[in-house]
Amino acid sequence: MWAWWNGKFIDKDTPVIRLEDRGLTFGDGLFEVIRTIDGRLLFYDEHMQRMVQSAACFHLELQPGPEALRGIALELINRNQIRDGELYLELTRGVDPMRGHRLPPAGTPPTLFLLAHPLRPIDPVAWSRGAAVFTFPDLRHGYCEHKTLNLLHNVLAKNFAFDRGGYDALMFREDATGRYVTEGGSSSYFCARDGVVITPALENILPGITRRKVIDLALARGMTVREERLYLEQLWQADEVFLASTVSKVMPVARIDERTWPAPGPVTRALTEAFEELFRRQLFE
Amino acid sequence: MWAWWNGKFIDKDTPVIRLEDRGLTFGDGLFEVIRTIDGRLLFYDEHMQRMVQSAACFHLELQPGPEALRGIALELINRNQIRDGELYLELTRGVDPMRGHRLPPAGTPPTLFLLAHPLRPIDPVAWSRGAAVFTFPDLRHGYCEHKTLNLLHNVLAKNFAFDRGGYDALMFREDATGRYVTEGGSSSYFCARDGVVITPALENILPGITRRKVIDLALARGMTVREERLYLEQLWQADEVFLASTVSKVMPVARIDERTWPAPGPVTRALTEAFEELFRRQLFE
Repeated sequence: MWAWWNGKFIDKDTPVIRLEDRGLTFGDGLFEVIRTIDGRLLFYDEHMQRMVQSAACFHLELQPGPEALRGIALELINRNQIRDGELYLELTRGVDPMRGHRLPPAGTPPTLFLLAHPLRPIDPVAWSRGAAVFTFPDLRHGYCEHKTLNLLHNVLAKNFAFDRGGYDALMFREDATGRYVTEGGSSSYFCARDGVVITPALENILPGITRRKVIDLALARGMTVREERLYLEQLWQADEVFLASTVSKVMPVARIDERTWPAPGPVTRALTEAFEELFRRQLFE
Repeated sequence: MWAWWNGKFIDKDTPVIRLEDRGLTFGDGLFEVIRTIDGRLLFYDEHMQRMVQSAACFHLELQPGPEALRGIALELINRNQIRDGELYLELTRGVDPMRGHRLPPAGTPPTLFLLAHPLRPIDPVAWSRGAAVFTFPDLRHGYCEHKTLNLLHNVLAKNFAFDRGGYDALMFREDATGRYVTEGGSSSYFCARDGVVITPALENILPGITRRKVIDLALARGMTVREERLYLEQLWQADEVFLASTVSKVMPVARIDERTWPAPGPVTRALTEAFEELFRRQLFE
Protein backbone atom coordinates (compact mmCIF):
# COMPACT_ATOMS: atom_id res chain seq x y z
CA MET A 1 0.00 0.00 0.00
CA TRP A 2 1.21 3.45 -0.92
CA ALA A 3 1.06 6.67 1.06
CA TRP A 4 2.08 10.17 0.03
CA TRP A 5 4.31 12.13 2.39
CA ASN A 6 5.92 15.53 1.91
CA GLY A 7 6.22 15.36 -1.84
CA LYS A 8 6.63 11.69 -2.57
CA PHE A 9 4.83 8.41 -2.84
CA ILE A 10 6.18 5.89 -0.33
CA ASP A 11 5.28 2.48 1.05
CA LYS A 12 2.76 3.42 3.75
CA ASP A 13 4.69 1.40 6.36
CA THR A 14 8.00 3.19 5.77
CA PRO A 15 8.91 5.13 8.90
CA VAL A 16 9.33 8.70 7.69
CA ILE A 17 8.26 10.69 10.76
CA ARG A 18 10.87 12.04 13.14
CA LEU A 19 10.57 11.86 16.91
CA GLU A 20 10.42 15.64 17.12
CA ASP A 21 7.49 16.09 14.76
CA ARG A 22 5.02 18.37 16.56
CA GLY A 23 2.14 16.20 15.40
CA LEU A 24 3.62 13.43 17.55
CA THR A 25 4.66 15.51 20.58
CA PHE A 26 1.90 18.15 20.82
CA GLY A 27 -0.97 16.95 18.63
CA ASP A 28 -0.14 20.18 16.80
CA GLY A 29 -2.02 19.61 13.55
CA LEU A 30 -5.19 18.88 11.62
CA PHE A 31 -6.71 16.08 9.58
CA GLU A 32 -9.57 15.27 7.20
CA VAL A 33 -11.22 12.01 6.15
CA ILE A 34 -12.74 12.01 2.66
CA ARG A 35 -14.89 9.29 1.13
CA THR A 36 -13.56 7.96 -2.15
CA ILE A 37 -15.48 5.89 -4.68
CA ASP A 38 -14.76 4.88 -8.28
CA GLY A 39 -11.88 7.31 -8.56
CA ARG A 40 -13.93 10.20 -7.11
CA LEU A 41 -13.26 12.23 -3.94
CA LEU A 42 -16.64 12.99 -2.41
CA PHE A 43 -17.27 16.58 -1.34
CA TYR A 44 -13.55 17.23 -1.75
CA ASP A 45 -13.96 20.99 -2.05
CA GLU A 46 -15.96 21.20 1.18
CA HIS A 47 -13.43 19.09 3.11
CA MET A 48 -10.49 21.10 1.84
CA GLN A 49 -12.19 24.42 2.46
CA ARG A 50 -12.62 23.37 6.10
CA MET A 51 -8.99 22.31 6.35
CA VAL A 52 -7.77 25.55 4.77
CA GLN A 53 -9.88 27.62 7.19
CA SER A 54 -8.66 25.67 10.23
CA ALA A 55 -5.06 25.86 9.03
CA ALA A 56 -5.34 29.65 8.84
CA CYS A 57 -6.82 29.73 12.33
CA PHE A 58 -3.85 27.80 13.79
CA HIS A 59 -1.23 29.47 11.55
CA LEU A 60 -0.51 26.20 9.80
CA GLU A 61 0.45 26.19 6.15
CA LEU A 62 -1.24 23.77 3.74
CA GLN A 63 1.28 23.37 0.97
CA PRO A 64 0.69 22.11 -1.73
CA GLY A 65 -2.81 23.58 -1.83
CA PRO A 66 -6.13 21.81 -2.49
CA GLU A 67 -5.84 21.81 -6.28
CA ALA A 68 -2.46 20.08 -6.38
CA LEU A 69 -3.49 17.74 -3.56
CA ARG A 70 -6.52 16.60 -5.54
CA GLY A 71 -4.28 15.15 -8.25
CA ILE A 72 -2.01 13.54 -5.65
CA ALA A 73 -5.01 12.02 -3.83
CA LEU A 74 -6.43 10.60 -7.05
CA GLU A 75 -3.09 9.08 -7.97
CA LEU A 76 -2.83 7.56 -4.49
CA ILE A 77 -6.24 5.85 -4.59
CA ASN A 78 -5.41 4.65 -8.08
CA ARG A 79 -2.05 3.24 -6.99
CA ASN A 80 -3.73 1.47 -4.05
CA GLN A 81 -6.49 0.24 -6.39
CA ILE A 82 -9.18 1.39 -4.00
CA ARG A 83 -12.71 1.50 -5.32
CA ASP A 84 -14.65 2.26 -2.18
CA GLY A 85 -12.45 3.91 0.38
CA GLU A 86 -11.34 6.57 2.82
CA LEU A 87 -8.70 9.15 2.12
CA TYR A 88 -6.92 10.47 5.22
CA LEU A 89 -5.00 13.78 5.11
CA GLU A 90 -2.88 15.01 8.00
CA LEU A 91 -1.06 18.31 8.37
CA THR A 92 1.27 18.98 11.31
CA ARG A 93 3.51 21.90 12.25
CA GLY A 94 6.53 19.85 11.22
CA VAL A 95 9.75 18.97 12.99
CA ASP A 96 10.84 21.15 15.87
CA PRO A 97 14.59 21.10 16.48
CA MET A 98 13.89 20.91 20.22
CA ARG A 99 10.56 19.96 21.76
CA GLY A 100 9.08 23.18 23.11
CA HIS A 101 5.76 24.99 23.11
CA ARG A 102 7.16 27.97 21.22
CA LEU A 103 6.16 27.84 17.56
CA PRO A 104 9.11 26.84 15.39
CA PRO A 105 10.74 29.53 13.23
CA ALA A 106 8.77 30.76 10.21
CA GLY A 107 9.70 28.66 7.23
CA THR A 108 9.83 25.39 9.19
CA PRO A 109 8.35 22.93 6.68
CA PRO A 110 5.06 21.40 7.84
CA THR A 111 4.47 17.66 7.64
CA LEU A 112 1.73 16.66 5.22
CA PHE A 113 0.70 13.11 4.40
CA LEU A 114 -2.10 11.18 2.77
CA LEU A 115 -3.25 7.62 3.35
CA ALA A 116 -5.80 5.77 1.21
CA HIS A 117 -7.52 2.77 2.75
CA PRO A 118 -10.44 0.62 1.66
CA LEU A 119 -13.67 1.65 3.38
CA ARG A 120 -13.76 0.20 6.90
CA PRO A 121 -16.26 -2.67 7.13
CA ILE A 122 -19.60 -1.69 8.68
CA ASP A 123 -22.32 -4.23 9.35
CA PRO A 124 -25.15 -3.27 6.92
CA VAL A 125 -27.66 -4.07 9.67
CA ALA A 126 -26.70 -0.70 11.19
CA TRP A 127 -28.39 0.97 8.20
CA SER A 128 -31.30 -1.43 7.79
CA ARG A 129 -32.32 -1.73 11.46
CA GLY A 130 -30.49 1.15 13.13
CA ALA A 131 -27.38 1.54 15.25
CA ALA A 132 -27.05 1.44 19.04
CA VAL A 133 -25.25 4.42 20.60
CA PHE A 134 -24.30 5.19 24.21
CA THR A 135 -24.31 8.53 26.03
CA PHE A 136 -20.95 9.73 27.29
CA PRO A 137 -19.91 13.07 28.80
CA ASP A 138 -18.18 15.39 26.35
CA LEU A 139 -14.90 16.28 28.07
CA ARG A 140 -13.22 17.68 25.00
CA HIS A 141 -11.38 20.97 24.53
CA GLY A 142 -12.54 24.23 23.00
CA TYR A 143 -11.35 23.46 19.44
CA CYS A 144 -14.03 21.00 18.39
CA GLU A 145 -15.02 23.15 15.41
CA HIS A 146 -11.71 22.09 13.88
CA LYS A 147 -10.49 18.61 13.05
CA THR A 148 -7.44 18.73 15.31
CA LEU A 149 -5.23 15.79 16.26
CA ASN A 150 -6.25 16.17 19.94
CA LEU A 151 -8.52 13.14 19.75
CA LEU A 152 -7.88 11.24 22.95
CA HIS A 153 -11.38 11.87 24.28
CA ASN A 154 -12.96 10.81 20.98
CA VAL A 155 -11.00 7.57 21.25
CA LEU A 156 -12.25 6.99 24.80
CA ALA A 157 -15.84 7.91 23.93
CA LYS A 158 -16.04 5.63 20.91
CA ASN A 159 -14.42 2.73 22.77
CA PHE A 160 -16.92 3.19 25.60
CA ALA A 161 -19.62 2.55 22.97
CA PHE A 162 -17.70 -0.28 21.22
CA ASP A 163 -17.26 -2.11 24.52
CA ARG A 164 -21.06 -2.15 24.89
CA GLY A 165 -21.67 -3.35 21.34
CA GLY A 166 -22.51 0.18 20.16
CA TYR A 167 -21.68 1.99 16.95
CA ASP A 168 -20.62 5.35 18.43
CA ALA A 169 -20.92 7.46 21.56
CA LEU A 170 -23.51 10.21 21.88
CA MET A 171 -21.67 12.93 23.77
CA PHE A 172 -23.38 15.52 25.92
CA ARG A 173 -22.52 18.70 27.78
CA GLU A 174 -24.59 20.22 30.55
CA ASP A 175 -26.07 23.64 31.25
CA ALA A 176 -28.55 24.92 33.85
CA THR A 177 -31.43 23.34 31.90
CA GLY A 178 -29.88 19.90 31.57
CA ARG A 179 -27.74 17.67 29.43
CA TYR A 180 -27.60 18.48 25.75
CA VAL A 181 -26.24 16.54 22.79
CA THR A 182 -23.00 17.64 21.19
CA GLU A 183 -21.90 14.95 18.73
CA GLY A 184 -20.50 11.46 18.47
CA GLY A 185 -16.87 10.40 18.46
CA SER A 186 -17.08 10.84 14.69
CA SER A 187 -20.77 11.49 13.92
CA SER A 188 -23.30 14.32 13.90
CA TYR A 189 -26.71 13.65 15.48
CA PHE A 190 -30.22 14.54 14.32
CA CYS A 191 -33.71 13.86 15.56
CA ALA A 192 -37.16 14.38 14.08
CA ARG A 193 -40.33 15.24 15.96
CA ASP A 194 -43.64 15.84 14.19
CA GLY A 195 -41.74 16.12 10.91
CA VAL A 196 -39.34 18.85 12.19
CA VAL A 197 -35.65 18.00 11.99
CA ILE A 198 -33.48 19.16 14.91
CA THR A 199 -29.70 18.99 15.16
CA PRO A 200 -27.27 20.52 17.68
CA ALA A 201 -26.17 24.06 16.86
CA LEU A 202 -22.50 24.61 16.00
CA GLU A 203 -21.38 25.38 19.55
CA ASN A 204 -17.92 23.83 19.80
CA ILE A 205 -18.82 20.87 17.63
CA LEU A 206 -17.59 20.02 14.15
CA PRO A 207 -19.30 21.67 11.19
CA GLY A 208 -19.65 18.25 9.59
CA ILE A 209 -19.68 18.06 5.80
CA THR A 210 -22.33 15.31 5.80
CA ARG A 211 -24.25 17.20 8.52
CA ARG A 212 -24.45 20.23 6.21
CA LYS A 213 -25.53 18.13 3.22
CA VAL A 214 -28.30 16.51 5.28
CA ILE A 215 -29.57 19.90 6.45
CA ASP A 216 -29.58 21.21 2.88
CA LEU A 217 -31.37 18.11 1.60
CA ALA A 218 -34.02 18.40 4.32
CA LEU A 219 -34.56 22.10 3.54
CA ALA A 220 -34.76 21.37 -0.20
CA ARG A 221 -37.51 18.85 0.58
CA GLY A 222 -39.50 21.50 2.41
CA MET A 223 -38.77 20.20 5.90
CA THR A 224 -38.27 22.56 8.82
CA VAL A 225 -34.74 22.25 10.24
CA ARG A 226 -33.75 23.72 13.58
CA GLU A 227 -30.14 24.05 14.69
CA GLU A 228 -30.29 24.57 18.43
CA ARG A 229 -29.22 23.23 21.79
CA LEU A 230 -30.80 19.78 21.74
CA TYR A 231 -31.41 18.42 25.24
CA LEU A 232 -31.42 14.71 25.99
CA GLU A 233 -34.95 15.16 27.39
CA GLN A 234 -36.07 16.38 23.95
CA LEU A 235 -34.27 13.50 22.30
CA TRP A 236 -36.18 11.00 24.47
CA GLN A 237 -39.42 12.50 23.07
CA ALA A 238 -38.26 12.39 19.43
CA ASP A 239 -40.07 10.24 16.88
CA GLU A 240 -36.80 9.16 15.32
CA VAL A 241 -33.07 9.68 15.72
CA PHE A 242 -30.28 9.34 13.18
CA LEU A 243 -26.61 10.14 12.77
CA ALA A 244 -24.50 11.27 9.83
CA SER A 245 -20.83 11.21 8.90
CA THR A 246 -18.53 10.80 5.93
CA VAL A 247 -18.20 7.08 6.57
CA SER A 248 -21.66 6.38 8.07
CA LYS A 249 -23.57 8.55 5.56
CA VAL A 250 -27.12 8.76 7.02
CA MET A 251 -27.64 6.02 9.59
CA PRO A 252 -30.76 5.41 11.71
CA VAL A 253 -30.34 5.11 15.48
CA ALA A 254 -32.44 2.36 17.02
CA ARG A 255 -31.15 2.56 20.56
CA ILE A 256 -29.59 5.10 22.93
CA ASP A 257 -28.48 3.43 26.17
CA GLU A 258 -31.59 1.46 27.21
CA ARG A 259 -34.13 3.44 25.16
CA THR A 260 -35.21 2.23 21.74
CA TRP A 261 -36.74 3.85 18.66
CA PRO A 262 -38.39 2.42 15.57
CA ALA A 263 -35.66 2.65 12.93
CA PRO A 264 -35.49 3.76 10.28
CA GLY A 265 -38.37 6.22 10.69
CA PRO A 266 -39.92 8.04 7.71
CA VAL A 267 -37.75 11.19 7.96
CA THR A 268 -34.59 9.10 8.24
CA ARG A 269 -35.70 7.07 5.23
CA ALA A 270 -36.44 10.16 3.16
CA LEU A 271 -33.07 11.72 4.01
CA THR A 272 -31.19 8.46 3.46
CA GLU A 273 -32.73 8.26 0.00
CA ALA A 274 -31.93 11.92 -0.72
CA PHE A 275 -28.35 11.52 0.46
CA GLU A 276 -27.85 8.34 -1.58
CA GLU A 277 -29.09 10.18 -4.64
CA LEU A 278 -26.68 13.07 -3.98
CA PHE A 279 -23.92 10.51 -3.42
CA ARG A 280 -24.66 8.78 -6.75
CA ARG A 281 -24.82 12.11 -8.58
CA GLN A 282 -21.26 12.85 -7.43
CA LEU A 283 -20.08 9.80 -9.35
CA PHE A 284 -21.16 11.32 -12.65
CA GLU A 285 -20.25 14.91 -12.05
CA MET B 1 22.57 13.51 19.23
CA TRP B 2 21.16 10.13 20.26
CA ALA B 3 17.62 9.15 21.07
CA TRP B 4 16.28 5.84 22.33
CA TRP B 5 13.33 4.33 20.54
CA ASN B 6 11.63 0.95 21.08
CA GLY B 7 14.67 -0.87 22.30
CA LYS B 8 17.55 0.83 20.54
CA PHE B 9 19.74 3.88 20.53
CA ILE B 10 19.38 5.79 17.27
CA ASP B 11 20.39 9.14 15.81
CA LYS B 12 17.60 11.39 17.12
CA ASP B 13 16.89 12.68 13.59
CA THR B 14 16.36 9.24 12.08
CA PRO B 15 12.75 8.91 10.99
CA VAL B 16 11.47 5.85 12.84
CA ILE B 17 7.81 6.70 13.34
CA ARG B 18 5.22 5.34 10.94
CA LEU B 19 2.36 7.41 9.55
CA GLU B 20 -0.17 5.22 11.35
CA ASP B 21 1.29 5.66 14.83
CA ARG B 22 -1.63 6.60 17.08
CA GLY B 23 0.52 9.23 18.79
CA LEU B 24 0.62 11.04 15.46
CA THR B 25 -2.99 10.50 14.38
CA PHE B 26 -4.94 10.67 17.68
CA GLY B 27 -2.59 12.20 20.24
CA ASP B 28 -3.14 8.80 21.87
CA GLY B 29 -0.31 8.82 24.39
CA LEU B 30 1.53 10.32 27.35
CA PHE B 31 4.81 12.07 28.06
CA GLU B 32 7.08 13.23 30.88
CA VAL B 33 9.85 15.81 31.08
CA ILE B 34 12.53 15.13 33.71
CA ARG B 35 15.33 17.45 34.75
CA THR B 36 18.78 15.91 34.43
CA ILE B 37 21.96 17.21 36.00
CA ASP B 38 25.44 15.72 36.43
CA GLY B 39 24.26 12.26 35.45
CA ARG B 40 21.24 12.41 37.80
CA LEU B 41 17.54 12.20 36.93
CA LEU B 42 15.74 14.54 39.30
CA PHE B 43 12.63 13.19 41.04
CA TYR B 44 12.69 10.29 38.59
CA ASP B 45 10.55 8.02 40.79
CA GLU B 46 7.83 10.66 41.14
CA HIS B 47 7.73 11.31 37.37
CA MET B 48 7.59 7.63 36.53
CA GLN B 49 4.97 6.89 39.17
CA ARG B 50 2.77 9.53 37.52
CA MET B 51 3.37 8.05 34.07
CA VAL B 52 2.62 4.51 35.28
CA GLN B 53 -0.63 5.66 36.91
CA SER B 54 -1.74 7.56 33.80
CA ALA B 55 -0.78 4.65 31.56
CA ALA B 56 -3.00 2.35 33.64
CA CYS B 57 -5.84 4.86 33.41
CA PHE B 58 -5.67 4.91 29.58
CA HIS B 59 -4.86 1.18 29.22
CA LEU B 60 -1.42 1.96 27.84
CA GLU B 61 1.48 -0.33 28.60
CA LEU B 62 4.81 1.09 29.76
CA GLN B 63 7.32 -1.52 28.74
CA PRO B 64 10.19 -1.62 29.73
CA GLY B 65 9.22 -0.43 33.20
CA PRO B 66 10.69 2.43 35.24
CA GLU B 67 13.68 0.49 36.57
CA ALA B 68 14.96 -0.59 33.15
CA LEU B 69 14.18 2.84 31.71
CA ARG B 70 16.31 4.53 34.36
CA GLY B 71 19.43 2.79 33.04
CA ILE B 72 18.48 3.60 29.45
CA ALA B 73 17.89 7.26 30.33
CA LEU B 74 21.23 7.53 32.11
CA GLU B 75 23.03 5.98 29.16
CA LEU B 76 21.25 8.40 26.81
CA ILE B 77 22.28 11.55 28.71
CA ASN B 78 25.77 10.13 28.94
CA ARG B 79 25.94 9.46 25.19
CA ASN B 80 24.68 12.98 24.49
CA GLN B 81 27.16 14.38 27.04
CA ILE B 82 24.46 16.45 28.70
CA ARG B 83 25.28 17.94 32.05
CA ASP B 84 22.29 20.16 32.64
CA GLY B 85 19.35 18.95 30.63
CA GLU B 86 15.83 17.74 30.01
CA LEU B 87 14.87 14.15 29.44
CA TYR B 88 11.71 13.67 27.39
CA LEU B 89 9.80 10.35 27.48
CA GLU B 90 6.87 9.62 25.21
CA LEU B 91 4.59 6.59 25.17
CA THR B 92 1.95 6.09 22.46
CA ARG B 93 -0.52 3.32 21.68
CA GLY B 94 1.69 2.24 18.79
CA VAL B 95 0.98 1.63 15.14
CA ASP B 96 -2.58 0.93 14.11
CA PRO B 97 -2.89 -1.08 10.88
CA MET B 98 -5.73 1.23 9.81
CA ARG B 99 -6.47 4.61 11.36
CA GLY B 100 -9.58 4.13 13.47
CA HIS B 101 -10.84 5.07 16.92
CA ARG B 102 -11.15 1.44 17.97
CA LEU B 103 -8.25 0.43 20.21
CA PRO B 104 -5.83 -1.79 18.32
CA PRO B 105 -5.76 -5.51 19.20
CA ALA B 106 -4.22 -6.47 22.56
CA GLY B 107 -0.54 -7.13 22.08
CA THR B 108 -0.04 -4.24 19.64
CA PRO B 109 3.39 -2.96 20.66
CA PRO B 110 3.30 0.59 22.05
CA THR B 111 5.76 3.22 20.84
CA LEU B 112 8.18 4.42 23.51
CA PHE B 113 10.98 6.90 22.99
CA LEU B 114 13.36 9.08 24.95
CA LEU B 115 15.08 12.31 23.95
CA ALA B 116 17.80 14.05 25.95
CA HIS B 117 18.39 17.72 25.27
CA PRO B 118 20.47 20.38 27.00
CA LEU B 119 18.36 22.54 29.30
CA ARG B 120 16.51 25.16 27.24
CA PRO B 121 18.00 28.62 27.75
CA ILE B 122 16.05 30.80 30.20
CA ASP B 123 17.00 34.42 30.86
CA PRO B 124 18.19 34.42 34.52
CA VAL B 125 16.46 37.78 34.97
CA ALA B 126 13.21 35.77 35.19
CA TRP B 127 14.43 34.38 38.52
CA SER B 128 16.14 37.51 39.83
CA ARG B 129 13.43 40.03 38.98
CA GLY B 130 10.40 37.89 38.23
CA ALA B 131 8.61 36.70 35.10
CA ALA B 132 5.71 38.33 33.24
CA VAL B 133 2.71 36.09 32.58
CA PHE B 134 -0.54 36.69 30.73
CA THR B 135 -4.03 35.47 31.53
CA PHE B 136 -5.64 33.20 28.95
CA PRO B 137 -8.86 31.17 29.07
CA ASP B 138 -8.34 27.49 29.81
CA LEU B 139 -10.10 25.70 26.96
CA ARG B 140 -8.51 22.33 27.56
CA HIS B 141 -10.10 18.92 27.85
CA GLY B 142 -10.99 16.86 30.90
CA TYR B 143 -7.69 14.96 31.08
CA CYS B 144 -5.42 17.67 32.47
CA GLU B 145 -4.47 15.54 35.47
CA HIS B 146 -2.49 13.42 33.01
CA LYS B 147 0.39 14.46 30.76
CA THR B 148 -1.35 13.54 27.51
CA LEU B 149 -0.18 14.47 24.03
CA ASN B 150 -3.33 16.58 23.49
CA LEU B 151 -1.39 19.82 23.93
CA LEU B 152 -2.69 22.11 21.22
CA HIS B 153 -4.26 24.51 23.70
CA ASN B 154 -1.08 24.61 25.80
CA VAL B 155 0.81 25.56 22.64
CA LEU B 156 -1.66 28.35 21.88
CA ALA B 157 -1.70 29.60 25.48
CA LYS B 158 2.08 29.75 25.80
CA ASN B 159 2.49 31.42 22.43
CA PHE B 160 -0.10 34.01 23.43
CA ALA B 161 2.25 34.85 26.32
CA PHE B 162 5.44 34.63 24.22
CA ASP B 163 4.01 37.04 21.66
CA ARG B 164 3.61 39.61 24.45
CA GLY B 165 7.11 39.07 25.83
CA GLY B 166 5.81 36.82 28.63
CA TYR B 167 7.21 33.65 30.15
CA ASP B 168 4.02 31.60 30.28
CA ALA B 169 0.25 31.93 30.22
CA LEU B 170 -1.82 31.94 33.40
CA MET B 171 -4.92 30.00 32.46
CA PHE B 172 -8.27 30.44 34.12
CA ARG B 173 -11.67 28.79 34.17
CA GLU B 174 -14.86 30.41 35.36
CA ASP B 175 -17.60 29.52 37.83
CA ALA B 176 -20.53 31.46 39.29
CA THR B 177 -18.13 33.33 41.62
CA GLY B 178 -15.70 34.38 38.91
CA ARG B 179 -12.52 33.45 37.09
CA TYR B 180 -10.14 31.12 38.89
CA VAL B 181 -6.57 30.10 38.13
CA THR B 182 -5.89 26.65 36.76
CA GLU B 183 -2.25 26.52 35.65
CA GLY B 184 0.20 27.70 33.02
CA GLY B 185 1.00 26.11 29.69
CA SER B 186 3.68 24.20 31.62
CA SER B 187 3.72 25.73 35.13
CA SER B 188 1.87 25.50 38.45
CA TYR B 189 0.91 28.79 40.15
CA PHE B 190 1.14 29.85 43.78
CA CYS B 191 0.48 33.04 45.69
CA ALA B 192 1.15 34.15 49.24
CA ARG B 193 -0.98 36.45 51.36
CA ASP B 194 -0.09 37.29 54.95
CA GLY B 195 2.36 34.41 54.94
CA VAL B 196 -0.22 31.82 53.81
CA VAL B 197 0.59 29.96 50.60
CA ILE B 198 -2.34 29.25 48.26
CA THR B 199 -2.27 27.13 45.11
CA PRO B 200 -5.09 25.85 42.90
CA ALA B 201 -6.60 22.55 44.03
CA LEU B 202 -6.14 19.51 41.75
CA GLU B 203 -9.34 20.01 39.79
CA ASN B 204 -8.46 18.96 36.25
CA ILE B 205 -4.93 20.36 36.46
CA LEU B 206 -1.64 18.50 36.52
CA PRO B 207 -0.43 17.13 39.85
CA GLY B 208 2.95 18.75 39.19
CA ILE B 209 6.04 17.10 40.67
CA THR B 210 7.63 20.48 41.47
CA ARG B 211 4.26 21.76 42.74
CA ARG B 212 4.17 18.90 45.26
CA LYS B 213 7.78 19.49 46.34
CA VAL B 214 7.06 23.19 46.91
CA ILE B 215 3.98 22.40 49.02
CA ASP B 216 5.95 19.90 51.10
CA LEU B 217 8.82 22.36 51.58
CA ALA B 218 6.41 25.09 52.67
CA LEU B 219 4.70 22.74 55.14
CA ALA B 220 8.06 21.57 56.48
CA ARG B 221 8.90 25.24 57.15
CA GLY B 222 5.75 25.64 59.20
CA MET B 223 3.87 27.65 56.58
CA THR B 224 0.13 27.22 56.10
CA VAL B 225 -0.65 25.91 52.60
CA ARG B 226 -4.13 25.94 51.15
CA GLU B 227 -5.07 24.00 48.00
CA GLU B 228 -8.33 25.53 46.85
CA ARG B 229 -10.08 27.27 44.00
CA LEU B 230 -7.94 30.42 43.64
CA TYR B 231 -9.86 33.29 42.04
CA LEU B 232 -8.13 35.98 40.02
CA GLU B 233 -9.64 38.53 42.42
CA GLN B 234 -7.75 36.85 45.28
CA LEU B 235 -4.61 36.78 43.19
CA TRP B 236 -4.84 40.55 42.64
CA GLN B 237 -4.78 40.96 46.46
CA ALA B 238 -1.82 38.61 46.98
CA ASP B 239 1.45 39.88 48.44
CA GLU B 240 3.44 37.79 46.00
CA VAL B 241 2.97 35.34 43.17
CA PHE B 242 5.26 32.62 41.87
CA LEU B 243 5.23 29.65 39.54
CA ALA B 244 6.91 26.26 39.62
CA SER B 245 7.82 23.59 37.11
CA THR B 246 10.49 21.02 36.33
CA VAL B 247 12.32 23.44 34.07
CA SER B 248 11.43 26.75 35.83
CA LYS B 249 11.98 25.40 39.37
CA VAL B 250 10.56 28.14 41.66
CA MET B 251 10.24 31.40 39.72
CA PRO B 252 8.84 34.71 41.01
CA VAL B 253 6.10 36.40 39.00
CA ALA B 254 6.52 40.16 38.73
CA ARG B 255 3.69 40.88 36.35
CA ILE B 256 0.30 39.44 35.36
CA ASP B 257 -1.14 41.31 32.38
CA GLU B 258 -0.85 44.99 33.46
CA ARG B 259 -0.59 44.33 37.21
CA THR B 260 2.81 44.17 38.90
CA TRP B 261 4.14 42.65 42.11
CA PRO B 262 7.39 43.14 44.01
CA ALA B 263 9.43 40.06 43.06
CA PRO B 264 10.81 38.01 44.54
CA GLY B 265 8.85 38.46 47.77
CA PRO B 266 9.98 36.86 51.06
CA VAL B 267 7.91 33.66 50.74
CA THR B 268 9.11 33.13 47.17
CA ARG B 269 12.68 33.70 48.31
CA ALA B 270 12.36 31.23 51.19
CA LEU B 271 10.85 28.56 48.94
CA THR B 272 13.37 29.18 46.16
CA GLU B 273 16.14 28.63 48.68
CA ALA B 274 14.47 25.51 50.08
CA PHE B 275 13.94 24.10 46.60
CA GLU B 276 17.53 24.81 45.55
CA GLU B 277 18.72 23.00 48.65
CA LEU B 278 16.52 19.99 47.82
CA PHE B 279 17.77 20.15 44.24
CA ARG B 280 21.42 20.13 45.37
CA ARG B 281 20.77 17.29 47.82
CA GLN B 282 19.55 15.15 44.89
CA LEU B 283 23.00 15.42 43.34
CA PHE B 284 24.59 13.58 46.26
CA GLU B 285 21.92 11.01 46.97
